[in-house]
Amino acid sequence: MAEITRLSFNQITISNWSVSQAVEGCVRHGIHSIALWRHKIEEAGLTPCVRLVKDAGLHVSSVCRGGMFPNPTAAGRQKNLEDNYRAVDEAAALHADSLVLVVGGGAEVGLGEARRMVADGVAALVPYARQHGVKLGLEPLHPMYAAERSVLVTIGQALELASAFAPQELGLVLDVFHIWWDPQVLSLIEQSRGRIYGFHVNDWLVPLPDLLLGRGMMGDGVIDNRMLRQAVDQAGYGGPIEVEIFNRVIWDTDPDQVLEQMIERFTAFV
Amino acid sequence: MAEITRLSFNQITISNWSVSQAVEGCVRHGIHSIALWRHKIEEAGLTPCVRLVKDAGLHVSSVCRGGMFPNPTAAGRQKNLEDNYRAVDEAAALHADSLVLVVGGGAEVGLGEARRMVADGVAALVPYARQHGVKLGLEPLHPMYAAERSVLVTIGQALELASAFAPQELGLVLDVFHIWWDPQVLSLIEQSRGRIYGFHVNDWLVPLPDLLLGRGMMGDGVIDNRMLRQAVDQAGYGGPIEVEIFNRVIWDTDPDQVLEQMIERFTAFV
Repeated sequence: MAEITRLSFNQITISNWSVSQAVEGCVRHGIHSIALWRHKIEEAGLTPCVRLVKDAGLHVSSVCRGGMFPNPTAAGRQKNLEDNYRAVDEAAALHADSLVLVVGGGAEVGLGEARRMVADGVAALVPYARQHGVKLGLEPLHPMYAAERSVLVTIGQALELASAFAPQELGLVLDVFHIWWDPQVLSLIEQSRGRIYGFHVNDWLVPLPDLLLGRGMMGDGVIDNRMLRQAVDQAGYGGPIEVEIFNRVIWDTDPDQVLEQMIERFTAFV
Repeated sequence: MAEITRLSFNQITISNWSVSQAVEGCVRHGIHSIALWRHKIEEAGLTPCVRLVKDAGLHVSSVCRGGMFPNPTAAGRQKNLEDNYRAVDEAAALHADSLVLVVGGGAEVGLGEARRMVADGVAALVPYARQHGVKLGLEPLHPMYAAERSVLVTIGQALELASAFAPQELGLVLDVFHIWWDPQVLSLIEQSRGRIYGFHVNDWLVPLPDLLLGRGMMGDGVIDNRMLRQAVDQAGYGGPIEVEIFNRVIWDTDPDQVLEQMIERFTAFV
């Protein structure tokens, strides 16, 4: 099993908690790492957030999220890029392992054009991130999000995009929900050696209750979290393992109960 | 644009029609080809179905569907295989271009084991299909169906599975809904040359209304049907193009209106 010290609480798992509540929750449950979302950082203010995690002795595994590069107009793309610069600033201030990039969907400009815009956006962002000491973690999303959230849908595609940059600048954040179906998943994880910046666990429920808010707690679905975690470890990743779950039912459950269960399930299934 | 004579009406697009009603609908709207579903064939009886399509002068582009190989027990797998033999018999009697195979999901036995069972099932089915002059068309489904319907999720994976058999025995049925997101889709279609047995059009709606019953009519979503049709043509496929749409709203619409719109949209977008 994975060392429990590697567990990182991705705060979206309890969506109605502020940064302050999420930090307190980690302390209360003996969790060492946390992943913060930008809309929550904005609510609390960046400087207070930095202080909160520092005072609590927490490690920040990631900031979620930059990306969303495609836009029909040059002005729109520039605006997106500037928002990404702010995301880099936040990740730098929080000493996060990486800034997660969800690159954006193809609905507005078409898949091919969106993929070109993503490549351009990433190329423009890398130098800024390098200057600020922030690693950019491309997160390939499940293909069912290709239209609305991410034209980057496979590990192979992310590796190809990353290959133009240094392994310490642009890497991958692997989430089991997005990659488990891939017939090549194990060999692709091995090929990601040296570029794995983060790893997320959760589960695929059967039937899937909802496209967006239907992810499950580890052990409640069909994903072999342990096998994938071992593959990621064997490919040289030894960092935090985030539990990231978007689920309406979990959001409506008592948060401390969710955190207790999360720790139990992490031990049992990761 | 694609020749309108290539349009094939997949009867699931009007799910409450019997085979007889679907055949009459094709005749009424000047459609040359039809794809039949097995539960509808069973309702009508195979011999009457053969007579109906023959008398109407219709070509049968496919029978939907065989497959569903994985099962926890040997007896269950044998039962599935026998059901596939019956599907082959039906496709043979109807002179269908192919029997579509939706191979089955991984929820019950796990992804890896399910994929082995699929390979075994296909290997057992090919000789029977060969004897009866039926081509088997593997349909890779969208990865969001990996748990419940198909552990075969990419063209690449289908090509690998097919490569152990002759190009006239085991090929692919390509449906835009299932393949459009793939970053390698155009090169994979080219690699499928000689093994493309069927091509299905429809659309991916944004947002997707439902995992199963949310497919759209061509032109209502984000898929570039024409680009994919041209790619399939360039890879040597010149056969029927099925319109296959699972959509609750369309099912609740007047069928003749749907068929009229289907023909218009085929001309405009395929």
